[in-house]
Amino acid sequence: MTKTNPGRFFEDYRLGETITHAVPRTLSGGERALYHALYPARHALHSSDAFAQRCGLPQSPLDDLIVFHTVFGKTVPDISLNAVANLGYAEGRFLRPVYPGTTLRSVSEVIGLKQNSNGKSGVVWVRTTGLDEADTPVLNYVRWVMVRKSDPDAPAPETTIPDLADHVAPNALTLPDGLTFDRYDTALAGEPHRAADYQIGEIIDHVDGVTVEEAEHMMATRLWQNTAKVHFDATNREDGKRLIYGGHVISLARALSFNGLANAQMILAINAGAHANPCFAGDTVRAWSEVLDKADLAPGLTALRLRLVATKGAPGALRGDDGKYLADVLLDLDYWALMPA
Amino acid sequence: MTKTNPGRFFEDYRLGETITHAVPRTLSGGERALYHALYPARHALHSSDAFAQRCGLPQSPLDDLIVFHTVFGKTVPDISLNAVANLGYAEGRFLRPVYPGTTLRSVSEVIGLKQNSNGKSGVVWVRTTGLDEADTPVLNYVRWVMVRKSDPDAPAPETTIPDLADHVAPNALTLPDGLTFDRYDTALAGEPHRAADYQIGEIIDHVDGVTVEEAEHMMATRLWQNTAKVHFDATNREDGKRLIYGGHVISLARALSFNGLANAQMILAINAGAHANPCFAGDTVRAWSEVLDKADLAPGLTALRLRLVATKGAPGALRGDDGKYLADVLLDLDYWALMPA
Amino acid sequence: MTKTNPGRFFEDYRLGETITHAVPRTLSGGERALYHALYPARHALHSSDAFAQRCGLPQSPLDDLIVFHTVFGKTVPDISLNAVANLGYAEGRFLRPVYPGTTLRSVSEVIGLKQNSNGKSGVVWVRTTGLDEADTPVLNYVRWVMVRKSDPDAPAPETTIPDLADHVAPNALTLPDGLTFDRYDTALAGEPHRAADYQIGEIIDHVDGVTVEEAEHMMATRLWQNTAKVHFDATNREDGKRLIYGGHVISLARALSFNGLANAQMILAINAGAHANPCFAGDTVRAWSEVLDKADLAPGLTALRLRLVATKGAPGALRGDDGKYLADVLLDLDYWALMPA
Repeated sequence: MTKTNPGRFFEDYRLGETITHAVPRTLSGGERALYHALYPARHALHSSDAFAQRCGLPQSPLDDLIVFHTVFGKTVPDISLNAVANLGYAEGRFLRPVYPGTTLRSVSEVIGLKQNSNGKSGVVWVRTTGLDEADTPVLNYVRWVMVRKSDPDAPAPETTIPDLADHVAPNALTLPDGLTFDRYDTALAGEPHRAADYQIGEIIDHVDGVTVEEAEHMMATRLWQNTAKVHFDATNREDGKRLIYGGHVISLARALSFNGLANAQMILAINAGAHANPCFAGDTVRAWSEVLDKADLAPGLTALRLRLVATKGAPGALRGDDGKYLADVLLDLDYWALMPA
Repeated sequence: MTKTNPGRFFEDYRLGETITHAVPRTLSGGERALYHALYPARHALHSSDAFAQRCGLPQSPLDDLIVFHTVFGKTVPDISLNAVANLGYAEGRFLRPVYPGTTLRSVSEVIGLKQNSNGKSGVVWVRTTGLDEADTPVLNYVRWVMVRKSDPDAPAPETTIPDLADHVAPNALTLPDGLTFDRYDTALAGEPHRAADYQIGEIIDHVDGVTVEEAEHMMATRLWQNTAKVHFDATNREDGKRLIYGGHVISLARALSFNGLANAQMILAINAGAHANPCFAGDTVRAWSEVLDKADLAPGLTALRLRLVATKGAPGALRGDDGKYLADVLLDLDYWALMPA
Repeated sequence: MTKTNPGRFFEDYRLGETITHAVPRTLSGGERALYHALYPARHALHSSDAFAQRCGLPQSPLDDLIVFHTVFGKTVPDISLNAVANLGYAEGRFLRPVYPGTTLRSVSEVIGLKQNSNGKSGVVWVRTTGLDEADTPVLNYVRWVMVRKSDPDAPAPETTIPDLADHVAPNALTLPDGLTFDRYDTALAGEPHRAADYQIGEIIDHVDGVTVEEAEHMMATRLWQNTAKVHFDATNREDGKRLIYGGHVISLARALSFNGLANAQMILAINAGAHANPCFAGDTVRAWSEVLDKADLAPGLTALRLRLVATKGAPGALRGDDGKYLADVLLDLDYWALMPA
């Protein structure tokens, strides 16, 4: 009997089953320092204990995307080891800040299955929850992937497509206990613009570009204990290229968006996301944002719904005349961020 | 008088002398995070405080190889700066878990000397001990290196070849105080296979490969304050290549071995080891293991004696017809690991 | 209105104004571990809590250059985003050790302005102070940069050139509270040479070389939240090269200087510094030091004034017959370091 994990194939998933993902992980100041070394992250709430304490938190929480990547990474051996494509995200909600010292683990529920018409693969929808060491949920999101079948003759499951929200409703966004921007210092945060200064429809070009190196994306991806071989093994693809973990591009784009969105301190929800084209070492990643919506959550606290687009050329259009993403587009992410009103 | 350290030459060693190695080092969660970024390490005991606490430990200990590399790195300026070759390891014993906050230092005793017949170099055997800030030993191992003579006319020392055990006897293995696998959770550990599921002679191909980058192995080697110039200076060799620290390959192979040996949670001893061929950036490192022996140490706790082989091609044979390591073999390591029975 | 930070131009500075720099940063053991991974740093006081405690400090302080880079990095968006050249440093004083857990921020006062005769740019002098979370200064230094004008027709300010000390006077050097070298252990520090063993005028070749990779200098520079695009964006220069942050070369050279100056434990002051030539990935950085002066500060505590020179070839002369730095010279730094007498 083989001892190694071959990953799950499409026919291995059962609707409603719960998968406990392996290898809980305790996060520390070390992960925070590495996050700052790997991404040009500067949002003050995630950088400074003193700033976070002025905002009513006990200390600086780990970057929301550290939590996302850690929770996501644990699901890879069970969900996406044999995935052909990572198709989408929905209903991602950050439920409470995560501080250094927290141990995270992940569980996923299979909420949808649909065999493809070619009979060789199918789409699996899972709702993944990140839990701390007291089993309190810190993050919850749906993603769906296309997974190969191992046995083409395995019977197709009944098709179940989950009913997913187009975006997280503002009243479903969770604010951290005690959070207040009453004593918010825009000079220390880096920009004067508050939520009221942003217009729905406004486009912000984040200006800066970062050329990506192999060592960086592999260190980042390993840090999240994400083991998908396409990221690490140059012999895996015929062209000798290592595919960069899509989450690396999310973090790069989010960090670049500081320049123009320095006060969008926390990610409250991920509404949707598409990895439009693959990213490889040598690409220079840039980003732009579009303000999609605004919602007042509490006195002084406003959520901005943002489209965050990463490109590998000059920022420009998103889709061609055929409705498809242009070749330069790497990421199209729809999320809610928290800002001082 | 020159102020810099020229390193020791063969004639500088005296049998029985004790060498205090410089630069004690306090380890923190930062080293742990970097270890996870540099290697695909996933053993749960070294990843999660919560998992370690269920196993009776106060928190997650630092990876055994963090301890090994830190202790080893301190010896380089005194033992291997002028080494021609790192010939072997023996009698390596991990004596207690090391937690973040511990300060490690190293001392070595010269236990063997043998001048080579060419009169230009010799073999030095040292027993190195890693000590914490209370001078409690945490690790003990023998290694031997071939070192150049500075003065070919220096007299040869009396030949003394230490009597080294072929492998650490099971009753010499040290279990951490309080360790128990009574509440061990295989789902969180990542695989169902316990010691009883492994057969002596069984071979496990760990499947995954990692292509190594210059930045990664240099960061790792520096992290252990290992200063051997062959690892860092591209002008040092005629071919412009930087030789990868052998310990980097050990860590890569051990981390890759998670896939098939996820429950081999701790390294208890290093019985022997050979760096069969040099590793360079661009190589894709793979690994396979062979179960050499098993030993029950305490109720529920079994040690597996494992051969861990790292290769830079597809895993295959170890030695050619001439008995020499094949060109693709990078590492042949013999160690004891602790598993739930 | 654009939301992004275009940086300041020469005409935007006013003599005497104080600039609060954004994004305070809490440092942890993670930054220390990364510093050790990115640089071959081995000074024992910054490596070991136990060693630091023997020297009368509560624990090992973060490397002085971690403090310098963090404080410096915060100033980049306000001072040097549009800088044509980083011209010099003066009167840099380290005022107290910084320990993990400290939050640093930076403020700068504009102390000098001089428009260039071409009318297109000018020199700005700022005195920057690094403050901890209690607003206690930890570092103070002057630097001056040449900055472009956005509007060539903007009127020239009155020329004010600050009166800067050639070097920090010994009686202006600050010793950490409680520091003593009475129980200093040279074996653990790595070298026997105390201040008395160094002669003014003595030259020390630090022997080792480090070939620099793109991933390393970018990770380091990001770690200090330094956002200057020349370091990250390969499309920014016509030659496709990324300019390495000058501070990266300072840290490399300082770390290399361990070999010959292992007991120069702390940097007390930066007297002057010039980035003589740009450094790029692929360069092999070497270093040499010259003892410029000595000053007894307290019983057992002596400051050495050192010239630290980084080169990308074999160490040699500093300047050509024309008085200009030779092409191989990367850095010429004048600093005070603390040593056991």
